[in-house]
Amino acid sequence: MYSLPELEAVRTFDAIGVLTSGGDAPAMNAAIRAVVRTALNIGIKVYGIHRGYSGLITDDMRRMSSSSVSNIIQRGGTILKSDRCEAFKEAPTRRRAAEILKQNGIQALVAIGGDGTLTGAHLFTEESGIPVVGLPGSIDNDIYGTDDSIGFDTAVNTAIGAIDRIRDTALSHERLFLVEVMGRNSGFIATQVGIACGAEMILIPEHPTVVESIGYTLVSNRKAGRGSSGIIVVAEGPEPGLTGRLADQLRFFGEEARVCILGHIQRGGSPTGHDRVLASCMGITAVNYLLADYSDIMIGSDGRQLMPVPLQDVIKYRKHDPRLYKIALQLHK
Amino acid sequence: MYSLPELEAVRTFDAIGVLTSGGDAPAMNAAIRAVVRTALNIGIKVYGIHRGYSGLITDDMRRMSSSSVSNIIQRGGTILKSDRCEAFKEAPTRRRAAEILKQNGIQALVAIGGDGTLTGAHLFTEESGIPVVGLPGSIDNDIYGTDDSIGFDTAVNTAIGAIDRIRDTALSHERLFLVEVMGRNSGFIATQVGIACGAEMILIPEHPTVVESIGYTLVSNRKAGRGSSGIIVVAEGPEPGLTGRLADQLRFFGEEARVCILGHIQRGGSPTGHDRVLASCMGITAVNYLLADYSDIMIGSDGRQLMPVPLQDVIKYRKHDPRLYKIALQLHK
Amino acid sequence: MYSLPELEAVRTFDAIGVLTSGGDAPAMNAAIRAVVRTALNIGIKVYGIHRGYSGLITDDMRRMSSSSVSNIIQRGGTILKSDRCEAFKEAPTRRRAAEILKQNGIQALVAIGGDGTLTGAHLFTEESGIPVVGLPGSIDNDIYGTDDSIGFDTAVNTAIGAIDRIRDTALSHERLFLVEVMGRNSGFIATQVGIACGAEMILIPEHPTVVESIGYTLVSNRKAGRGSSGIIVVAEGPEPGLTGRLADQLRFFGEEARVCILGHIQRGGSPTGHDRVLASCMGITAVNYLLADYSDIMIGSDGRQLMPVPLQDVIKYRKHDPRLYKIALQLHK
Amino acid sequence: MYSLPELEAVRTFDAIGVLTSGGDAPAMNAAIRAVVRTALNIGIKVYGIHRGYSGLITDDMRRMSSSSVSNIIQRGGTILKSDRCEAFKEAPTRRRAAEILKQNGIQALVAIGGDGTLTGAHLFTEESGIPVVGLPGSIDNDIYGTDDSIGFDTAVNTAIGAIDRIRDTALSHERLFLVEVMGRNSGFIATQVGIACGAEMILIPEHPTVVESIGYTLVSNRKAGRGSSGIIVVAEGPEPGLTGRLADQLRFFGEEARVCILGHIQRGGSPTGHDRVLASCMGITAVNYLLADYSDIMIGSDGRQLMPVPLQDVIKYRKHDPRLYKIALQLHK
Repeated sequence: MYSLPELEAVRTFDAIGVLTSGGDAPAMNAAIRAVVRTALNIGIKVYGIHRGYSGLITDDMRRMSSSSVSNIIQRGGTILKSDRCEAFKEAPTRRRAAEILKQNGIQALVAIGGDGTLTGAHLFTEESGIPVVGLPGSIDNDIYGTDDSIGFDTAVNTAIGAIDRIRDTALSHERLFLVEVMGRNSGFIATQVGIACGAEMILIPEHPTVVESIGYTLVSNRKAGRGSSGIIVVAEGPEPGLTGRLADQLRFFGEEARVCILGHIQRGGSPTGHDRVLASCMGITAVNYLLADYSDIMIGSDGRQLMPVPLQDVIKYRKHDPRLYKIALQLHK
Repeated sequence: MYSLPELEAVRTFDAIGVLTSGGDAPAMNAAIRAVVRTALNIGIKVYGIHRGYSGLITDDMRRMSSSSVSNIIQRGGTILKSDRCEAFKEAPTRRRAAEILKQNGIQALVAIGGDGTLTGAHLFTEESGIPVVGLPGSIDNDIYGTDDSIGFDTAVNTAIGAIDRIRDTALSHERLFLVEVMGRNSGFIATQVGIACGAEMILIPEHPTVVESIGYTLVSNRKAGRGSSGIIVVAEGPEPGLTGRLADQLRFFGEEARVCILGHIQRGGSPTGHDRVLASCMGITAVNYLLADYSDIMIGSDGRQLMPVPLQDVIKYRKHDPRLYKIALQLHK
Repeated sequence: MYSLPELEAVRTFDAIGVLTSGGDAPAMNAAIRAVVRTALNIGIKVYGIHRGYSGLITDDMRRMSSSSVSNIIQRGGTILKSDRCEAFKEAPTRRRAAEILKQNGIQALVAIGGDGTLTGAHLFTEESGIPVVGLPGSIDNDIYGTDDSIGFDTAVNTAIGAIDRIRDTALSHERLFLVEVMGRNSGFIATQVGIACGAEMILIPEHPTVVESIGYTLVSNRKAGRGSSGIIVVAEGPEPGLTGRLADQLRFFGEEARVCILGHIQRGGSPTGHDRVLASCMGITAVNYLLADYSDIMIGSDGRQLMPVPLQDVIKYRKHDPRLYKIALQLHK
Repeated sequence: MYSLPELEAVRTFDAIGVLTSGGDAPAMNAAIRAVVRTALNIGIKVYGIHRGYSGLITDDMRRMSSSSVSNIIQRGGTILKSDRCEAFKEAPTRRRAAEILKQNGIQALVAIGGDGTLTGAHLFTEESGIPVVGLPGSIDNDIYGTDDSIGFDTAVNTAIGAIDRIRDTALSHERLFLVEVMGRNSGFIATQVGIACGAEMILIPEHPTVVESIGYTLVSNRKAGRGSSGIIVVAEGPEPGLTGRLADQLRFFGEEARVCILGHIQRGGSPTGHDRVLASCMGITAVNYLLADYSDIMIGSDGRQLMPVPLQDVIKYRKHDPRLYKIALQLHK
């Protein structure tokens, strides 16, 4: 349960826009719904911008009604579609985007997405003066300034469900599995999933481990009579192919490991309760901060509080949390 | 992700006991696993006490090994079984329980459960001097001193999954459904579920609503053209039969509502990632507080921190949180 | 996998209609999609009739395109909505419906639903001469002439998932649960679910059992040391309240049973693979039979064959299958 | 629902063995449970042989009681564990296995698994004269003589659930996904899954398709305005890496496709109702055929009938079913 900041509305808007950009994440729809209904309820028009910044620069947007967001809170993906828009990294493109918004009478923007999206949002508002509030939408949870990003809890639960299935085979065949989960350069998904699945080891970019150490641990676990079945959760890390190479190397230690790359199943699916509530609260709060005359911020969660974080901090700092990793090591005895 | 308190171990134990009592909750097994492995890792013996306090007073307990908690982190229910033990409310019974623990060389106890369990734990440690640390295990989340109790997140997601199914029929038949969720005297499940499902209304004991007001709201929603399908989430409340009576009364307002009582499906099932991680962290922390010579406390969560809460506070105060209710009203337009 | 009849197309249509009527069932959408795309692929226009026969008599229908059925194969409920239409039981109403079809240039009809729907379809085609092919859409699987009806497999799996959760509590608390599943007057869901969940007993309308016999069996199972936890699956049967009364009566035998009414969660949800494939094959076949100049039939499955069944047989005979019941008794030792 | 053959018991056994071998499949546990309880109910002792034929030749087996198969019907994997046993391909090894069975007083065997398992079973009974009945346990459904093998329905539904998630991203990003499903040399999983997911194309080993044809179809679909999102389901086929190479080749046609290898998640998980019932019926029937003095057979399903199939046919012929493939092509717009 989240505490929403009590804010005084000091201005209003004729119309605002909302978009989702970058990799899609479950509960982006819940955030869109909250933005749309909160704004409509106080008489502000809302435009849904299609395919993120790509739709912004091609004027691909549509007026939203309350019923246009009915029955979407439980749906994965994003009804506004999403895109990674390289062109928006150029200042002239962003200027054109500002023109288009003005032509449509859109006076402010809510941008939902990850690092790239929020970087674009910061540059756009700084240059154009058009108020922008960002929401952290990313399954990777690697965004500075928020405990949780929208979609992370769902992705974690999807990966857990998949590993619970793989464990059936691991136990039946007394086999070792290397399961690669998403997370780009960060180990948030891997750590949470690894703890929740009772993984034998968790390998994350924040704690690089040499293969000798992994092999040695496995060998001593086997000697200690812990059976030869097991799950090692591996964060995908910066370069593809890591997990396959690791499996090859483990053969030198006499370990025959199977590789599973969970891949894109982690992006989709009906969002969990946590993500739906988080996204709903963040969507309401985004509109409320716009009305309170804030801009160039992202809504972040700190425990049960939602709070504003300057976008320049969000894009400058890297998120890191060493806590759970230690726990993981403690419990797989 | 939780921050675990850094504690200095100032004493140790030869053996400790662990039990689950009261209504079962998903991830109780993850908590048991964490208690058992944390203790074993530092050389403390662990006894699993069966059927809660009932097993304590009949000397029904068994020595736990690391492998006795293998492959349970993903399982609903509790491998130690649970019971509501009336006899433990009597001081002589608790004295007998203390005798039995001493005879078995068990020097401290971790008790996992809800209000009744924690009340028993408080009286037991106060009278016997045997150190006890409690963990909040309850799907209802109505325990003072902790943001989340073990099992709440899973129960919420189970109820959401059920309502997502019911919505299919509600939309196909343009019907109104009253869906009763668990929660005893509290509306935590109902509120979280109601927001996550985009419910038309959420009825909880903390905000008693007269039927005229409910009927009036429905009638005006219909007039406003919001279609005649909808979901009203109703907390079960103190007396059974509430939801059925409400459906009867709504007929006077021309509303034909179907009733679904979700019931016991909300107690079981494989726990969510959140609950598995919460329970694991709390289980580790319980043992660490015993080693730091604490007793008569419950481990609670406050945002991302785990912290000790005196058991006498836990059983004296009532948990209440008015925040989400307001949000709910805001979003179902 | 189903074998579709090889049929020669001997006529064609300018336009056909498709409707879903009666209780909604998962995979009705897959059937609609198959009807629409099969017809469009050979140049026949398709009208989607809303809310079953109710939309037929109020001229509430819309032209369908291929994309109007995109992305629905995985959705529960029915995009055409459904209704139980009392008025269609009257001949004058059906005459009006025939007029409306003719005015819209609709020359044939595919009607998806249960007993009531198929009875209406039979009378309608008999009186009007407009060709009609029915599809069995019902979670209850109580339709004569087909092994499986659309939605049955999904409902069974939903009920199984719910009971798997309830079993966690049954085992943790060593309790007996009476779980009521849907099925109206038939025990198909109850039997399939009971076998799949390892139920202690299965109570179905086709085999009425006196309460003394149930109580006696439970008592002797307990004496035989089979533990006191267990699941009894009860078909809802013709009159509501049966399961609650049974729980009351079992108290005389010293059995304290909890009651769970699974209710409407069994109607919704994303359809299983089986139901999606069955509905797709039946939808294709319905159109093919219309083109082969058949009418007044339902498409039924017999093992892996799809075949036509005269609608008058479907509505005259009662489906019954004594086989699985015996198996059930055999396996719960 | 299955019809079980009515058989006369003409002989009995003091003890029988049961084993699972080869790749594990969901509902193998339900089959084990049915074999164990059916035999125990008529006074035959049952030994569970561990790790398939590997446990047979190392005398790794244990006496089963009714409660040793309690609460397993819903579990994936196999409690008896499984293995691919190369040594059993040698006649001397099989002779040793026969010795070991005789020493343990085990007079007949039920072997659950795929092609390799059933081949071993055939040779073993032919050489040793010890009666053996096989059950088809394989997610691939590539076993001659049975419509369905144990585990196929669950694997199909697991893959469907995964693709339903991937579709969220495909739609949100308007992307093409190549999803590789299991099935070894056969396209049963791919075809069923492809139809159920509304796949744009289904690529199976039985219908080799040149990449030019695939590229051409995609290009013309795009031109026909069918959007650029889509799912192509690819059967893994005989050599690994197929799907990745296909993605590379499709770049020449201007198609940027993402690859998802569903992998081992398809093997595990709680079995569907269909698989639990099929496995239960087959398990009962296996014991009944042993009692009727049959040997060297597999229990197969033909529509709703269970029937014996000579093991030599099972291992000689290849299963093939061209039906569904045609359907698939018909329905994706």
